[in-house]
Amino acid sequence: MSSTVITNIASLVTNDPSLGGSALGLIQDAAVVIDGDRVVWTGESSKAPATDNRVDAGGRAVIPGFVDSHSHLVFAGDRTQEFNARMSGRGYSAGGIRTTVAATRAATDTELEAGLVRYLAEALRQGTTTLETKSGYGLTVEDEARALRIAAAHTDEVTYLGAHIVSPDYADDPAAYVALVTGEMLDACAPHARWVDVFCEKGAFDGDQARAILTAGRAKGLHPRIHANQLSYGPGVQLAVELDAASADHCTHLTDADVDALANSRTVATLLPGAEFSTRAEWPDARRLLDAGVTVALSTDCNPGSSFTSSVPFCIALAVRDMRMTPDEALWSATAGGAQALRRTDIGRLTPGAYADLAILDAPSHVHLAYRPGVPLVSEVWRRGRRVA
Amino acid sequence: MSSTVITNIASLVTNDPSLGGSALGLIQDAAVVIDGDRVVWTGESSKAPATDNRVDAGGRAVIPGFVDSHSHLVFAGDRTQEFNARMSGRGYSAGGIRTTVAATRAATDTELEAGLVRYLAEALRQGTTTLETKSGYGLTVEDEARALRIAAAHTDEVTYLGAHIVSPDYADDPAAYVALVTGEMLDACAPHARWVDVFCEKGAFDGDQARAILTAGRAKGLHPRIHANQLSYGPGVQLAVELDAASADHCTHLTDADVDALANSRTVATLLPGAEFSTRAEWPDARRLLDAGVTVALSTDCNPGSSFTSSVPFCIALAVRDMRMTPDEALWSATAGGAQALRRTDIGRLTPGAYADLAILDAPSHVHLAYRPGVPLVSEVWRRGRRVA
Ligand SMILES: [Zn+2]
Ligand SMILES: [Zn+2]
Repeated sequence: MSSTVITNIASLVTNDPSLGGSALGLIQDAAVVIDGDRVVWTGESSKAPATDNRVDAGGRAVIPGFVDSHSHLVFAGDRTQEFNARMSGRGYSAGGIRTTVAATRAATDTELEAGLVRYLAEALRQGTTTLETKSGYGLTVEDEARALRIAAAHTDEVTYLGAHIVSPDYADDPAAYVALVTGEMLDACAPHARWVDVFCEKGAFDGDQARAILTAGRAKGLHPRIHANQLSYGPGVQLAVELDAASADHCTHLTDADVDALANSRTVATLLPGAEFSTRAEWPDARRLLDAGVTVALSTDCNPGSSFTSSVPFCIALAVRDMRMTPDEALWSATAGGAQALRRTDIGRLTPGAYADLAILDAPSHVHLAYRPGVPLVSEVWRRGRRVA
Repeated sequence: MSSTVITNIASLVTNDPSLGGSALGLIQDAAVVIDGDRVVWTGESSKAPATDNRVDAGGRAVIPGFVDSHSHLVFAGDRTQEFNARMSGRGYSAGGIRTTVAATRAATDTELEAGLVRYLAEALRQGTTTLETKSGYGLTVEDEARALRIAAAHTDEVTYLGAHIVSPDYADDPAAYVALVTGEMLDACAPHARWVDVFCEKGAFDGDQARAILTAGRAKGLHPRIHANQLSYGPGVQLAVELDAASADHCTHLTDADVDALANSRTVATLLPGAEFSTRAEWPDARRLLDAGVTVALSTDCNPGSSFTSSVPFCIALAVRDMRMTPDEALWSATAGGAQALRRTDIGRLTPGAYADLAILDAPSHVHLAYRPGVPLVSEVWRRGRRVA
């Protein structure tokens, strides 16, 4: 393995809180030394040790690669017309998620994999070096297991979401669907996944059902995470804390007790502003969570129904504009925050021992991700110590 | 000159209202034939005439290149700290536009030109094939003329905005500054510009001053356009209509009389949602303007103070989400609308005789620009019949 120094970095985000006086661990005029797939040194350019190779960042900023801890990318079909009708104020007999379920079931493995590969590459070009993704558009034993098998071939962060909605096949008997999700389907899916998730919401799964699903998953070695409190107040966040879920995702409607519970837990609140953007919904109150001491992550929720963006920089711009996060907080949440939502310490930071997953920005500072919204500022992406985009 | 057909276009936006039953003039499964720098034919792929060369769009969408009719790209300096402080709720003794004026005056010609070239290239990669830009950070005879000379070397759409603010050098005698702007400065600037503009707003120039400035410019052969009604109600829009300005830009605060005046004029209302995004201001009401029959354009206002985005796709996504434009209306406004705001019929459309300026999207439909916010979907750009990005 050979060593490489990336030098002449105007501003380096390490996320090492012992450096630079803030959570971002900023170093000005910095260098990063990579050996194999890992970071081995960071510091001022002038003090960098000798290496085999040298890359000049040309006064650009370097940040950890984004950790997008929430997406739904094993799907087929298109919901452009539904989106167009909704945004144009026209009626449209949308099948919603059922449209995607039908198309996903009808797709071949090759088609599903090609879609996933395409969106992973699109995300990578935008700086995302770790991407979690879920099942949830199959809703049969075979189709859920297939989605996870396909996902697991491309990312380590795979989530079993058989409990996305009650399968249309079980519309008259939701209890039987919960039994399937916690029984035969779980058995088929657990070998391919790291996480178990449930959409805990009116019209999907209630608190007791969600508890049964996450508990069953945990008994099979899966770690819990949860879609909670997106569309209305509910038991999801409290359940997440009760079960030590790695993350409660959405968190748009929270009581003071929910915020307190999160603040006194290891559970991360993962905010997904792409969903609020694309459905014209109320923004989650990131400021309230941060001021209460909750750990906040920021992810895309990329999916064809409610948030078809793969752009973490776009979510950062929204978080700053509409959720009152500072540019520093938003960057931290999209990197170290995402890592914490996946209970990982080897990604989301550029510190000795961590993976050399990073993005070089066409800008002198990470602040430009919010200052220059919509502009594709990620100019180079490195993953595991190699340039990949 | 050789002819080229771009074929296998899933969805082609022509902006020819005689086609396809809407203003966009959509053609499905389409082809475009280019001869030299012009479009010579559009229609169904199967009916395309024989050509020398053939390009397969692979089922992607093709749209006219964006016409960004409002930007401020001849500047130097950086306002990252001011933005960061504003978005972080921290006090900061910002010099505002004066910071940029001081840095621009201090910059060399080479530095100013390098910045402009960089932002033009960045915009081009995002699908912008025509970009208007302005002076307004020099505010001396020499510095304004220099900015326009530099701009004119790179775009045909150059606007004299000596009346951006009252020069700090004339803080005690604004009338003398208006005399300069309408006299010696105008004489030095008019040869390099097509348009004259003024920032008509409390704290900048009032209605009488704005009329004097635009009228003086018109007498020197410049066509009027105006920054109007951005921060408060005011006389700008009515003045624009009175003087047959090509466009009244911003239009955030409008009375019913303002809307009526626009609707009964040739003056386009150019909306600039990047400014409202980056300053957390109230959105212009595009729906009200469209429903009244006003012609609406959509542009970036790209500048380092209040809207540092060069991304027309980002502005389209905002227009749909927050200004209640339909995806079709937003696309039209960012192409044909921008052209109309520049009184051009040779750009912003893909019809026989127009310039072959177009973008190929990594998507089957232009709707994806709003459906997939923040994602860099422009995969190829052609300008004057040649692929340039
Ligand atoms: Zn989700
Ligand atoms: Zn402007």
